[in-house]
Amino acid sequence: MQANIGKKIYDLCETLWPITRSITGDGVRETLSVIKKILPNLVVHEVATGIQCFDWTIPMEWNIKDAYVIDPDGNKIINFKQNNLHIVSYSTPVNTVMSLSELQQHLHSLPSQPDAIPYVTSYYEERWGFCLADSQRKTLKDGRYQVFIDSELKDGSLTYGEILIPGKSLKEIFISTYVCHPSMANNELSGPTVTTYLTKWIQSLEDNYYSYRVIFIPETIGSICYISQNLGHMKEYIFAGYNVSCVGDNNAYSYLPSRQEETLSDQVALHVLKHTHPDFVRYSYLDRGSDERQYCSPGVDLPIASVMRTKYAQYKEYHTSLDNLDYISPEGLFGAYEVLTKCIECIENNKIYRASVLCEPQMGKRNLRPTLGASTNMGSDIKLMSDILAYADGHHDLLYLANKLDMPMWHLLDTVQILIKENLLTEC
Amino acid sequence: MQANIGKKIYDLCETLWPITRSITGDGVRETLSVIKKILPNLVVHEVATGIQCFDWTIPMEWNIKDAYVIDPDGNKIINFKQNNLHIVSYSTPVNTVMSLSELQQHLHSLPSQPDAIPYVTSYYEERWGFCLADSQRKTLKDGRYQVFIDSELKDGSLTYGEILIPGKSLKEIFISTYVCHPSMANNELSGPTVTTYLTKWIQSLEDNYYSYRVIFIPETIGSICYISQNLGHMKEYIFAGYNVSCVGDNNAYSYLPSRQEETLSDQVALHVLKHTHPDFVRYSYLDRGSDERQYCSPGVDLPIASVMRTKYAQYKEYHTSLDNLDYISPEGLFGAYEVLTKCIECIENNKIYRASVLCEPQMGKRNLRPTLGASTNMGSDIKLMSDILAYADGHHDLLYLANKLDMPMWHLLDTVQILIKENLLTEC
Amino acid sequence: MQANIGKKIYDLCETLWPITRSITGDGVRETLSVIKKILPNLVVHEVATGIQCFDWTIPMEWNIKDAYVIDPDGNKIINFKQNNLHIVSYSTPVNTVMSLSELQQHLHSLPSQPDAIPYVTSYYEERWGFCLADSQRKTLKDGRYQVFIDSELKDGSLTYGEILIPGKSLKEIFISTYVCHPSMANNELSGPTVTTYLTKWIQSLEDNYYSYRVIFIPETIGSICYISQNLGHMKEYIFAGYNVSCVGDNNAYSYLPSRQEETLSDQVALHVLKHTHPDFVRYSYLDRGSDERQYCSPGVDLPIASVMRTKYAQYKEYHTSLDNLDYISPEGLFGAYEVLTKCIECIENNKIYRASVLCEPQMGKRNLRPTLGASTNMGSDIKLMSDILAYADGHHDLLYLANKLDMPMWHLLDTVQILIKENLLTEC
Repeated sequence: MQANIGKKIYDLCETLWPITRSITGDGVRETLSVIKKILPNLVVHEVATGIQCFDWTIPMEWNIKDAYVIDPDGNKIINFKQNNLHIVSYSTPVNTVMSLSELQQHLHSLPSQPDAIPYVTSYYEERWGFCLADSQRKTLKDGRYQVFIDSELKDGSLTYGEILIPGKSLKEIFISTYVCHPSMANNELSGPTVTTYLTKWIQSLEDNYYSYRVIFIPETIGSICYISQNLGHMKEYIFAGYNVSCVGDNNAYSYLPSRQEETLSDQVALHVLKHTHPDFVRYSYLDRGSDERQYCSPGVDLPIASVMRTKYAQYKEYHTSLDNLDYISPEGLFGAYEVLTKCIECIENNKIYRASVLCEPQMGKRNLRPTLGASTNMGSDIKLMSDILAYADGHHDLLYLANKLDMPMWHLLDTVQILIKENLLTEC
Repeated sequence: MQANIGKKIYDLCETLWPITRSITGDGVRETLSVIKKILPNLVVHEVATGIQCFDWTIPMEWNIKDAYVIDPDGNKIINFKQNNLHIVSYSTPVNTVMSLSELQQHLHSLPSQPDAIPYVTSYYEERWGFCLADSQRKTLKDGRYQVFIDSELKDGSLTYGEILIPGKSLKEIFISTYVCHPSMANNELSGPTVTTYLTKWIQSLEDNYYSYRVIFIPETIGSICYISQNLGHMKEYIFAGYNVSCVGDNNAYSYLPSRQEETLSDQVALHVLKHTHPDFVRYSYLDRGSDERQYCSPGVDLPIASVMRTKYAQYKEYHTSLDNLDYISPEGLFGAYEVLTKCIECIENNKIYRASVLCEPQMGKRNLRPTLGASTNMGSDIKLMSDILAYADGHHDLLYLANKLDMPMWHLLDTVQILIKENLLTEC
Repeated sequence: MQANIGKKIYDLCETLWPITRSITGDGVRETLSVIKKILPNLVVHEVATGIQCFDWTIPMEWNIKDAYVIDPDGNKIINFKQNNLHIVSYSTPVNTVMSLSELQQHLHSLPSQPDAIPYVTSYYEERWGFCLADSQRKTLKDGRYQVFIDSELKDGSLTYGEILIPGKSLKEIFISTYVCHPSMANNELSGPTVTTYLTKWIQSLEDNYYSYRVIFIPETIGSICYISQNLGHMKEYIFAGYNVSCVGDNNAYSYLPSRQEETLSDQVALHVLKHTHPDFVRYSYLDRGSDERQYCSPGVDLPIASVMRTKYAQYKEYHTSLDNLDYISPEGLFGAYEVLTKCIECIENNKIYRASVLCEPQMGKRNLRPTLGASTNMGSDIKLMSDILAYADGHHDLLYLANKLDMPMWHLLDTVQILIKENLLTEC
């Protein structure tokens, strides 16, 4: 099961890998159509260029067919078709010949990481450029270079996907991930792929109490666009949620709080990580950098926290061609998937209970405890029953009880069911 | 004084030692009649077999006259009259002869403590059995054994004692202890004997503000029975209280909180122990095991904490014949008595005061401070006056002031009286 | 600037040094007239002897012209004109001859500090006395001593100075210092001199939002008198303030809280000291000893904290002739002045802001952020803008934001102004 799901998520990363995504364009549509094969209920939305979203405007749609640089010797030395990071995202079309010194002004590389192609974008200022490894850049010799970019910026739309999984309650748990990064793995094929299988798992739940809303959006402009069109509904119904990003490598588990810091999403994430990966890294909201910047912004104030593997900007491969399929792994992806399912299980099960009888019940007559009293300590199952009944006061939720007992919430669930069946515990 | 009271409590333990107590029966009545000689106001209640108490029913009354086992050689090898722990409490009558292997199924011993007779009960399931040292059990040889238990289970009643000591206020401080253990010392002749002399001391107070309710009950069924018949009154009037158990040995001081953890009872117990025995052991409510399980249960919610010497289940002699009169001492009993009287003094004196004049009063004109000002530090008595007046704001109680000043509350009382007499302090 | 102001404050100390101050009398008037040259708006109040102030009465006014002791050989061995600490403050007049043993009962010295003349007062009990170095006292030989004190106790008044600097708001920041100490430097020429230049600086503010009330009073009786005559106004308008005492030496920075401990005055003082002098000494209100005793007393309840250099009673020169102009320095005085101006700046700027747009604003289009996105970390100025906007929720004040960002508030102010100018931030 574990290996199986991790493998499936990884396979999906491989499938999505070659697609050239940006914040708009056919790359996003193609990505969503792949995901829709796994999640048929996925609804794809298009928001037209020019629509105002708070302080922002939906930009022109960008698509690209080809791009390359040919050196003075006639060699195609930079080729978009080999790696889509070679092109600055949103580059305008160009087809010309220029000197090396002119070309240099359009080149981007990282001297500190000579073998990495950097990931560069220019969504809101028209320009063009190529990215390449600094080691390659150093080999360029004087002469005339042919530069070709077959791209298009046009009125079009921003594309995103959305699924609503209804529950008994209209209250929603919100999951957000993004689909705007070209060929990079941890940041960010891991987010949409883990979210796809997380959503599939939620759909498989027989009896989910809460509703779930999952969106696959371009980062920043996508979340701002979504919030601007749905703020009233979101503030009314969303009571917990997670931003899913950087969930693919096998190096660390991380937690980044919501701005409010102590929402249910935060408490549950901390509870799950403490009991499953106690050595997780705890960040501050000051370290934020993904769409929680929008969800938690003043006036929006949604309770969205982040559970990650190695956080964006905390690993040297981040935002370069080295963040590739070797950087992530089935195990890494599955680990994040597992933590997120545990978080959802905790929220689903976080009910408030009240002991049904005053004082301790007589466990012996129910065969829940030996009738022979002696000095030996009671068994851990009897102790757990006793502790749950002792704290189930109709005011504190199961998460409080689990924290009080210093046990993972999921270790309490079977016993809670036994007590309910015995009419000793009542859900409030 | 100290030696005297400790000795008296110990003497009472010796008097009560031989009585065969259980949760019902003449042993409880005899115990209460001894206590009633010291506390003539003790009212003895009888609650009939079959009466429903929440999830429980008052069981049949059990009495026993004799019990023994005679070995194949005609030796009386187990004799209830030598040690009443030899019989499983609530054993049904039996008079028969059986093989060793049959008998073994009715024997209880502790391989890990080969010289201790364990304490075993079977209140709510009819059975019979004998307890013995494991070292003795190992010497039993094959053959026919005569088994005799002259006991009786009949409709009768559960017996408990109660005293109400009226104060100026109807609000009650509640003290509970139990009288259901046969011949064992720390757990539990120490509880009822310390409580007896604590009650006698409360009765001797000339001017107690609060009322006191003290009950001597069988554990668990007794407290559940008492609560079921008095819950309304208890929730209305009881605002603090202690469960008194395991208060006889000289090894440790312990504190176990109420479920609510920060009630006045808890704060006072911590304050007293911190200032008298700072090395006390602090337990969690998860470690509970006495009648606080009932008093603090959800819906009952009484503010009952425990101050103990070595806590039940925390010493190897617990619930065996080794918890005998050698395990406790006059000094051990007196130490617990002294802490409990200090707790009551603190609650009695925990009033709210307000400085009677605005700004500091002129202490010099009242001869409360030298009229000659110099650089030397003021005396500690003047500093104490000044500090009490500085914090007496009509909102915080004396316990808060004492904690603020990091002094035991009883070190403030004389100075408070001086300030009241000088019209500088007013009780709110 | 720095050296300049420190020097001016020190010069004022030198000017005020020779004046014989006490809690009443011409020394206070002369001191206030010197200060009035720098603060022409200073209003001088006189409160008549006999007026009742809560538990106190304005005492008779005391003035002194001369005092000395002549030894059996005709030498003037103690001479008030050489050091005004030689006379016990409020000494009654005397002109007589007496034996050494009679004289000894009127002499005060410090065996533990043999070269220091102690500072002794007797405001509320009529007596006379001389103070001298213990080393000198030991040289006195038997014989007849001429004792002369030309002082006067008469119906008069208590004198104090007051300035109100109006702001846009009627709410007041309150500064109190005292002018009752004769020739001593840290305690207490530093207080009134630093306060004089602090007041001058406040007057120079072009746009102060709050009003400021500054008083120069005798300690204890002065603050009690002032409170008794102004309590209603003070409780209505004063929302922050500091008692200024012991602000002249160069050894330490100290903080002593208000009784309420967490008022804005306390939070700001802690914020400023933490970011300017993180090794400051933190006292408890139990260590109080200046006029905060009155301002923070129960029923007065004003939010007055203290920022000091070396605290009264914490240095060996305290209340002796060794607390002289060598003990303080221009640097020491200026350091305290600077901390106090920073405290006032923080209170003036401690507004509540709200981000003007929902979600993050588009900084690129405002040229507040590069339009080229890459992996490199954003600059600290962009990060600061982003963080201010992320936390500006209309509920938390700028002090909260500064503490959240772990930066001194004054590092935020320029960026706040840029954001307001860009219509990204609104003052609530």
